[in-house]
Amino acid sequence: MSTQTPSAPLSAADLALFNRWWHAANYLSVGQIYLLKNALLREPLKLEDIKKRLLGHWGTTPGLNFIWLHLNRIIRAQDRNILFIAGPGHGAPGLIASTWMEGTYTEYFPDVTQDEEGMTRLFRQFSFPGGIPSHAAATTPGSIHEGGELGYSLSHAYGAAFDHPDLVVACVIGDGEAETGPLATSWHSNKFLDPKTDGAVLPILHLNGYKIANPTILARIPKPELRDFLKGCGYDPIFVEGHEPDPMHQAMATAMDQAFASISAIQEKARTQGDTTRPAWPMIVLRSPKGWTGPKTVDGLRTEGYWRSHQVPVDNMSKPGHLAVLEEWMRSYKPDDLFTPEGALKPELAALAPKGDKRMSATPYANGGTHLRPLRLPDFRTHAVQITAPGQTVAESTRILGSWLKDVMAANADKRNFRIVAPDENNSNRLNAVLDVTNRAWNAETYSYDDHLSLDGHVMEILSEHTCQGWLEGYLLTGRHGFMSCYEAFIHIVDSMVNQHAKWLKTASETEWRQPIASLNYLLTSHVWRQDHNGFSHQDPGFLNHMVTKKAETVRIYLPPDANTLLCITDHCLRSRNRINVIVAGKQPELQWLDMNAALTHCQQGIGIWEWASNDKGSEPDVIIGCAGDVPTLEALAAVSILNKHIPDLKIRVVNVVDLMTLQTPDQHPHGLPDATFDTLFTTDKPVIFAFHGYPALVHQLIYKRRNAINFHVHGFREEGTTTTPFDMTVRNHLDRFHLVSNVIRHVPRLASKAAYAHQAVLDKLAEHQRYVCEYGEDMPEIRNWSWTR
Amino acid sequence: MSTQTPSAPLSAADLALFNRWWHAANYLSVGQIYLLKNALLREPLKLEDIKKRLLGHWGTTPGLNFIWLHLNRIIRAQDRNILFIAGPGHGAPGLIASTWMEGTYTEYFPDVTQDEEGMTRLFRQFSFPGGIPSHAAATTPGSIHEGGELGYSLSHAYGAAFDHPDLVVACVIGDGEAETGPLATSWHSNKFLDPKTDGAVLPILHLNGYKIANPTILARIPKPELRDFLKGCGYDPIFVEGHEPDPMHQAMATAMDQAFASISAIQEKARTQGDTTRPAWPMIVLRSPKGWTGPKTVDGLRTEGYWRSHQVPVDNMSKPGHLAVLEEWMRSYKPDDLFTPEGALKPELAALAPKGDKRMSATPYANGGTHLRPLRLPDFRTHAVQITAPGQTVAESTRILGSWLKDVMAANADKRNFRIVAPDENNSNRLNAVLDVTNRAWNAETYSYDDHLSLDGHVMEILSEHTCQGWLEGYLLTGRHGFMSCYEAFIHIVDSMVNQHAKWLKTASETEWRQPIASLNYLLTSHVWRQDHNGFSHQDPGFLNHMVTKKAETVRIYLPPDANTLLCITDHCLRSRNRINVIVAGKQPELQWLDMNAALTHCQQGIGIWEWASNDKGSEPDVIIGCAGDVPTLEALAAVSILNKHIPDLKIRVVNVVDLMTLQTPDQHPHGLPDATFDTLFTTDKPVIFAFHGYPALVHQLIYKRRNAINFHVHGFREEGTTTTPFDMTVRNHLDRFHLVSNVIRHVPRLASKAAYAHQAVLDKLAEHQRYVCEYGEDMPEIRNWSWTR
Ligand SMILES: Cc1ncc(C[n+]2csc(CCOP(=O)(O)OP(=O)(O)O)c2C)c(N)n1
Ligand SMILES: Cc1ncc(C[n+]2csc(CCOP(=O)(O)OP(=O)(O)O)c2C)c(N)n1
Ligand SMILES: [Mg+2]
Ligand SMILES: [Mg+2]
Repeated sequence: MSTQTPSAPLSAADLALFNRWWHAANYLSVGQIYLLKNALLREPLKLEDIKKRLLGHWGTTPGLNFIWLHLNRIIRAQDRNILFIAGPGHGAPGLIASTWMEGTYTEYFPDVTQDEEGMTRLFRQFSFPGGIPSHAAATTPGSIHEGGELGYSLSHAYGAAFDHPDLVVACVIGDGEAETGPLATSWHSNKFLDPKTDGAVLPILHLNGYKIANPTILARIPKPELRDFLKGCGYDPIFVEGHEPDPMHQAMATAMDQAFASISAIQEKARTQGDTTRPAWPMIVLRSPKGWTGPKTVDGLRTEGYWRSHQVPVDNMSKPGHLAVLEEWMRSYKPDDLFTPEGALKPELAALAPKGDKRMSATPYANGGTHLRPLRLPDFRTHAVQITAPGQTVAESTRILGSWLKDVMAANADKRNFRIVAPDENNSNRLNAVLDVTNRAWNAETYSYDDHLSLDGHVMEILSEHTCQGWLEGYLLTGRHGFMSCYEAFIHIVDSMVNQHAKWLKTASETEWRQPIASLNYLLTSHVWRQDHNGFSHQDPGFLNHMVTKKAETVRIYLPPDANTLLCITDHCLRSRNRINVIVAGKQPELQWLDMNAALTHCQQGIGIWEWASNDKGSEPDVIIGCAGDVPTLEALAAVSILNKHIPDLKIRVVNVVDLMTLQTPDQHPHGLPDATFDTLFTTDKPVIFAFHGYPALVHQLIYKRRNAINFHVHGFREEGTTTTPFDMTVRNHLDRFHLVSNVIRHVPRLASKAAYAHQAVLDKLAEHQRYVCEYGEDMPEIRNWSWTR
Repeated sequence: MSTQTPSAPLSAADLALFNRWWHAANYLSVGQIYLLKNALLREPLKLEDIKKRLLGHWGTTPGLNFIWLHLNRIIRAQDRNILFIAGPGHGAPGLIASTWMEGTYTEYFPDVTQDEEGMTRLFRQFSFPGGIPSHAAATTPGSIHEGGELGYSLSHAYGAAFDHPDLVVACVIGDGEAETGPLATSWHSNKFLDPKTDGAVLPILHLNGYKIANPTILARIPKPELRDFLKGCGYDPIFVEGHEPDPMHQAMATAMDQAFASISAIQEKARTQGDTTRPAWPMIVLRSPKGWTGPKTVDGLRTEGYWRSHQVPVDNMSKPGHLAVLEEWMRSYKPDDLFTPEGALKPELAALAPKGDKRMSATPYANGGTHLRPLRLPDFRTHAVQITAPGQTVAESTRILGSWLKDVMAANADKRNFRIVAPDENNSNRLNAVLDVTNRAWNAETYSYDDHLSLDGHVMEILSEHTCQGWLEGYLLTGRHGFMSCYEAFIHIVDSMVNQHAKWLKTASETEWRQPIASLNYLLTSHVWRQDHNGFSHQDPGFLNHMVTKKAETVRIYLPPDANTLLCITDHCLRSRNRINVIVAGKQPELQWLDMNAALTHCQQGIGIWEWASNDKGSEPDVIIGCAGDVPTLEALAAVSILNKHIPDLKIRVVNVVDLMTLQTPDQHPHGLPDATFDTLFTTDKPVIFAFHGYPALVHQLIYKRRNAINFHVHGFREEGTTTTPFDMTVRNHLDRFHLVSNVIRHVPRLASKAAYAHQAVLDKLAEHQRYVCEYGEDMPEIRNWSWTR
């Protein structure tokens, strides 16, 4: 004790213990990758002890184990809450080893006991059929981050830290991972962190020099350049560099002490002195060999400290010498020094772990559902648009939604458990009412004329869909609620992130000890049909196609046609758990259809006949006009009124779809309509002219099992876009009223030539439209001012 | 002249001219946003002169115009080739104004003359039905970059600069855009640039302080922090800051002189002295007000130098005072000083433009197709896997492909017009043979034990799918060829980028003066079925679903079942133009089916009966077994051999699909099979058990128009994944031979109870499989060692 100095905080005894803990974690990691039995190496290693298929990632693992150990030291000394995020989640063997050493693994999986039998199970199950995957996953205690698809560790970390003032998120970032776009921009999340009301993030850049088969950029620029980069990102980097264990332990302990002291100082300053000037947050750069402590060379080729140790540094075990390399490597950790004869971790090592909930492997922060509390949701019906008759009133649906979200924000302000994220589009998407009760989070320079910026704002805006998504995921996974609005076309930017979240939710729901978390809610607006300011690049409704490939249990898609239905649906989404809810709704002024009662009834069923728009009651319909989405609904109803005028005896049934997944069968999706109900709505033989918000093929894909599938004629986006008038967009894609009418005439057999004049009339109208918009640049008055009439 | 100093390189006369050019560009930009007529403001502005719908983005435009002007000065002085990339492509009014002023616009669009009538057309067409979109697009002369979806300017710029030693790409980056992930990581592209054989990129960070409705991060951190950041990214920033035109012109001219001198010095050093140490490349930071020279305030609210000038700073023109604001603004540019009475740019201003091809608006670099030359493609047949009988030989298909790509690389080495990109996966995807003839591009620190890194390598590896994609797009758009390999699941990372490229290709193909460019070719491997090292996170075949939403003219999807078909298909793709070709193929050792002749015949048709695997010749089939993809083909054929054994009289037809789009009808896709052919292959009434690589619903979506659609039973990925054995992956998703057999028995009516014993046998096998893999961690020998037998 007396020999401790700030640069050598560990005593010789500490050092010995630290090395042994680290050896144990490394030993257990290697064991998971390689061994089927002979877990404690009681006998010389034989080929039959080895797994037939060698899978897993060694390279990143010793570094993760090293960091984990040093964080444990801080937890024990300072009684901290720390959440560990492993950017390279393929280092799962390390996470699982540490978790087992802390006893948590056995608590969650009682089969995997703290003895030789349990250790054998631990080894065997890794990357093994019926066992656990090779990456960190929902099945990994203490984890909220899979790390399979690289790039999201730091945005997840910040998401977890927001509104958790007592939490420090230690986020290990791979130097390969640091090359991804999402990671590269997420450094700047510190401009959105409030040292007073949020927790802290401690980034640990793991400069092990390599990715799969290449050196990494950040490891191969001069140190001053790296330092500039990190300082430029707003951090104060502490470097821990080398490969000799003892000095590295001392350096890491020193760095940790310094980093946590600095976090305390920053928080203290903000919380007691009220000084919230954006600080340079501490971070650690760990430069150590990839595959540290692993085989130096294999078959004469450099392995430790090179990319060759990324996965399984020595494989093909029947090759002469390979078994010996593995045995020598494993024995170098001296298992007898680490484990009792029964195979438990020796008590003096076990004592290095924190206790109970303080163990990173057991922190409740990583099992958000356990402390999730429902939002207080004020009555959305008080925000209803007053409708006297359908299709007469104009409103901006998302603006109405914004007025309710403002109430939601206010009602939960004291709990600080609800955030709205948007990629610089909150106001553009007309949710600006929420800024009456909160601000945009902002902790960079502020000028006198700035509006609605503050440190503790609960609207989060950065021009990075990735960061928005990552923050929100981190926030939800640690037990809070959120809402993201985004231009419809650009939500594709996070296609792959939402994949990963969907996979996480699926696995988590199969993992007994994981509690459900709040759903991920998207409002997609500025949609394909009303990209008034922008061109073709902003027109893409394909996120729906992407979402329907996910597990049906996870995904919900809603296309509310107006403001009142949008309110109903959003309230429902904010109450749901473990889902990804996609809501598509327009922000432009548009006709409103349903009063609040009708909206509630309609949304509860998700699909239904609009009797007031239909004229087939009491008889067989000649045609069903289906619609899903606000603009398609408008065009469908306008088509109905044209048909009513020209062919008054045509029996039309109008079916509106709010909940898209009702179109599937119940065995495909929990919301799927039973066949009988579907057939009642759409008949089994009548033509269905369907006006759809997205790509037509999506509807065909959803209904292919239905009896009447063959009679569906779907109008939707045909990938014909540009900057033009709203109605012209529908015309270019044949979604407009005139094309709908034309297709009805074509498909109702009895109309045939009888309707020739009606058909001519709509063709004439299309020609007139064409001339008019090219002359005046806006839609014809009869289009702009159209309102519903029977 | 004599008054010029390095810090004031412009004479008073220059200054006056520069201001007038800038005013003209600004005037024309505002005109495009607002005016229908009265283009030269010969009369007081009236409401009817104004467009009914005011669309467009003013905020970024004056900055773009300012930069363009100063680049022109350099071109004239130094006879440079400069390609201009406008990150914020929504500044199109500026690009189009400059292009018109240089005469190029009129050359491309002869209607838009250099006089009042032409100017009126120019104004009117902007964001107008039948006119041009509001963003830079394929219709914008001199542009390779749309800039609608932000984030890709800098990776496009580097892509354009590679292998174009005489080119400087001036890349304007919005400070909002700089917050996106893709942009944030693309700064590091300079570690992949060879000063000797590549051109230069001059990033110009446009710090106008705001994005849509928020300040930007980089504009709100202290200048030293920003400088650190940019230095940390490897640049030497030159700051141009202020708002008073004259000093800003002097500062910008100085900065440009300095930047281009520095580029020359770096290139000189590399090219004549052979010193290629990575330099700090110059870049410019332009800090100027958003909406510079626009209305200072509107309705009393700060507008110039604030986010309010992002789009249309003054709208709602019938509001009192607004028309006057616009008129005063436009007249502040003094149109009479800028244009002749006829409406042409005054000659002394026109003289500021470079001539001919040197005009950025006319540079051939921006119309890549004009100088595209075909690749030399060595005969791929010499790489054929020798097949004596189907299903006996094992090969790694992508490794075979790699051996041919090596020849392609070598054959075109002297032309330097072919690059292979991969997100650190080139070797993992087994294309490493190409490294025998080239290296990985790398211009950061290199150690003695590094392998295959060099400055001029033509394999590009950065752990950023975004940057890979952006580089490749830039490379292709400027007239070269390329190939990208990627893990199948993670290609979703670029879903939105590929959207934008597909849109560009569509618009370009409709733009007469754009010549076709080389196709964007993807090899997706490490696919869903053989993610042996990784878990669920790496299993997603949904990119195909994404691609089929694009225009049929653009998209091709190939699922070659083995190495020889993979070679045929890739050769075809490298010869194609204006397409996005997606090839999915496995990298693991797998059975080979077709010899080269059979492969050629099969690939040419894209779909066909495999007679050697079928037994229905000369009779009606009882069942068709369809397959698409390597693993599905294997399982389908294994199912056939089980069926042959158990039910020898069952007539089975095997149809393999290489070209997925043949499944669509010819009106849906150019490759679509005519109905008659489809019906001959698949019959109109027999059950089709279809083993598919991806999500089953995709096949249903493609075939919904076919007569036999209802009898298709598709097996594919059901989103059930983890780290397990290859065969167990198929079992979990019911794609395996046993489930296929079981479904055949279920759907062939005459089998019914007759096949009960066969059915029991496959169920027993499934149970046995289950026990075996959990015990041994690898597949049963009869699965691992299976080979085709009749
Ligand atoms: C987005 C993404 N692209 C590619 C991969 C494939 N991949 C798996 S690990 C890896 C290298 C990771 O390197 P690094 O982040 O430095 O981790 P470490 O060195 O600690 O293993 C790559 C490219 C991936 N997992 N995610
Ligand atoms: C990826 C993406 N997300 C969101 C948008 C919506 N958007 C259009 S312009 C803009 C702000 C751009 O700001 P900046 O890059 O600074 O450009 P400038 O200030 O020069 O207009 C945003 C967020 C977009 N175009 N692309
Ligand atoms: Mg690394
Ligand atoms: Mg800006």
